[in-house]
Amino acid sequence: MACGLVWAQAGDDSKAATSNVPGAQYPRIQPDLRITFRVNASAAQKVQVKPGGDGLGKGPYDMVRDDKGVWTVTTPPAAPGFHYYFLLVDGFQCNDPGSQTYFGWNTETSGVEVPDRVDFYEAKEVPHGEVRARWYLSKTTGQWRRAQVYTPPDYDQSGSKRYPVLYLQHGSGENETSWVKQGRVSFILDNLIAAKRAAPMIVVMENGMVATKAGEGGRGNGAFEEVVISDLIPMIDATYRTVADREQRAIAGLSMGAGQAMQIGLGHLDKFAYIGSFSGGVRASDPKTAYNGVLADAAAFRKKVKLLWMGAGIAEVASHQATQAWHEALEKAGIPNVFFECPFAHEWQTWRYDLQDFAPRLFR
Amino acid sequence: MACGLVWAQAGDDSKAATSNVPGAQYPRIQPDLRITFRVNASAAQKVQVKPGGDGLGKGPYDMVRDDKGVWTVTTPPAAPGFHYYFLLVDGFQCNDPGSQTYFGWNTETSGVEVPDRVDFYEAKEVPHGEVRARWYLSKTTGQWRRAQVYTPPDYDQSGSKRYPVLYLQHGSGENETSWVKQGRVSFILDNLIAAKRAAPMIVVMENGMVATKAGEGGRGNGAFEEVVISDLIPMIDATYRTVADREQRAIAGLSMGAGQAMQIGLGHLDKFAYIGSFSGGVRASDPKTAYNGVLADAAAFRKKVKLLWMGAGIAEVASHQATQAWHEALEKAGIPNVFFECPFAHEWQTWRYDLQDFAPRLFR
Repeated sequence: MACGLVWAQAGDDSKAATSNVPGAQYPRIQPDLRITFRVNASAAQKVQVKPGGDGLGKGPYDMVRDDKGVWTVTTPPAAPGFHYYFLLVDGFQCNDPGSQTYFGWNTETSGVEVPDRVDFYEAKEVPHGEVRARWYLSKTTGQWRRAQVYTPPDYDQSGSKRYPVLYLQHGSGENETSWVKQGRVSFILDNLIAAKRAAPMIVVMENGMVATKAGEGGRGNGAFEEVVISDLIPMIDATYRTVADREQRAIAGLSMGAGQAMQIGLGHLDKFAYIGSFSGGVRASDPKTAYNGVLADAAAFRKKVKLLWMGAGIAEVASHQATQAWHEALEKAGIPNVFFECPFAHEWQTWRYDLQDFAPRLFR
Repeated sequence: MACGLVWAQAGDDSKAATSNVPGAQYPRIQPDLRITFRVNASAAQKVQVKPGGDGLGKGPYDMVRDDKGVWTVTTPPAAPGFHYYFLLVDGFQCNDPGSQTYFGWNTETSGVEVPDRVDFYEAKEVPHGEVRARWYLSKTTGQWRRAQVYTPPDYDQSGSKRYPVLYLQHGSGENETSWVKQGRVSFILDNLIAAKRAAPMIVVMENGMVATKAGEGGRGNGAFEEVVISDLIPMIDATYRTVADREQRAIAGLSMGAGQAMQIGLGHLDKFAYIGSFSGGVRASDPKTAYNGVLADAAAFRKKVKLLWMGAGIAEVASHQATQAWHEALEKAGIPNVFFECPFAHEWQTWRYDLQDFAPRLFR
């Protein structure tokens, strides 16, 4: 009966979250995956923890003030993986000073990493690739843009060897850093490549929230498509040792980025032979007419497309159902495709699992 | 008389700060470098802007609530350059949702970029280098660490060409990302290299706040020295095409990092021939006995050290005076050194100017 109190006290078996800034003791993860949040806000009237995703439960969670003005709450057990969250301090939504920040919800948010029983996205003693910040001038927008480019571990030592490229997109309100920080893309690829489960590949991440005017918020899938086709792919092929061929080029994304991957991939089959949709981006319409009819001739599609991959978390019910229905409609229409399920919600843990299944199927 | 009000209104000549998250209209920079901050916090009793450096003035600045719960304040004219700041919402120190975050003060802070009359740290149409995130396992700490490595524009196209290396450190409470984000190191080097004012070089940035146990806050210059000498330099020389020679290796840093650069550089003259101290790190003691007597024999020191460089901002009065006194004492003792002054405070604008003067003097 006193169990809930014991976990939240000092001297328990909880651990500071690995997503905290160095030295910050809160938030702390309890052995049963409840999370204890604590902040010092002596002059505030009300302090709450507001989840920024499904895996932390519904919330917001009211924190309780002690006599020194320190506010604490312990949540119910969280789902494994990475979860966005905010503090509400007298209703004002802001970051927890104990957390690193992660770009999501169109701003810099707090985040908490909850351990899973797997380690495929952790840094291990295997050869590590690099993530390179690459600035380039976009003709489409007239602005300097920054791509994040993962190069595989042997890239600098392999002489003239050339590599296939995966273009990998984030979700709405996120940016080109999200697959690196929240998604752990480099560790996932390092581990797959070391185990010889994935081909060494370059992974390119860009900002899919394209502002077409300075000072404008991100929007515009049309503008992003033009950036990818006219600016990004030519720059990557000119700058890195790529194989500039559709059979050595893939595109995938999550949520909004899944929609972009399907639109850009299926709209440019001269450029891409592998397409992945993580949690979204499927139109549950007639395969004969969807995507400008590119799926209508199943035999022709099968010849062109090496992989059409769609994933969904079981806990993201609507997305899961829509994806399953579309998967079955495509099978019935003679379009081979992979439907991958994992137990999580519309969150990064689902997309990490997705990438771990998707990447080994590329460029084989 | 109504001037102060006019500037803060819509339709004026102010511009959203370039340090904002995409689409955020506040903070805004006025033509006279006053800054207008605005946040929505309808349930708060008091909201303030708290400067995290000298260039924004003393503060905190009380914001004024309108009838919809939107709080606004316009500060006095700010110094050019990058300034940390926080919001105080009913006394709780947190980030402005309109700002990107920058690691400083041991946490993720807000920051505002105020234009200067110079552009040496802006992205220009010149060849760009890369900033690479490089993970490695430190024997000293037993932990995975991440270095940020700037490689010059021609690095991937220059075959077997090898490069000199500058080790460049941040200040207290910052981390290995600070020279990239706040300092604009890649744009400064890109522009200098394009103008043939600096030799193409690799720049390595690491976290100088070394935690020796998991969960511990950053501390320990001794631990950092061991990381640099035993882990970082060997890893860099094994991973990149460096010239692994003291005459092709420099170390510099700012504030706390200046102290580390002087300690590590002067303590390991077998490893470094160029040493830079930006705003700090000088001990105003007798050159005969300082730094374990390494300066006592001026002739021997002159033979070994190609450059001893010290900078300070005129607006950081104590640091400036200490640096000038030490500069004069060294000159009197026959130790050649460069003393560089710029008009700013103990802030990033000083350190950007420092780097622009320091980098061209290296490896010549």
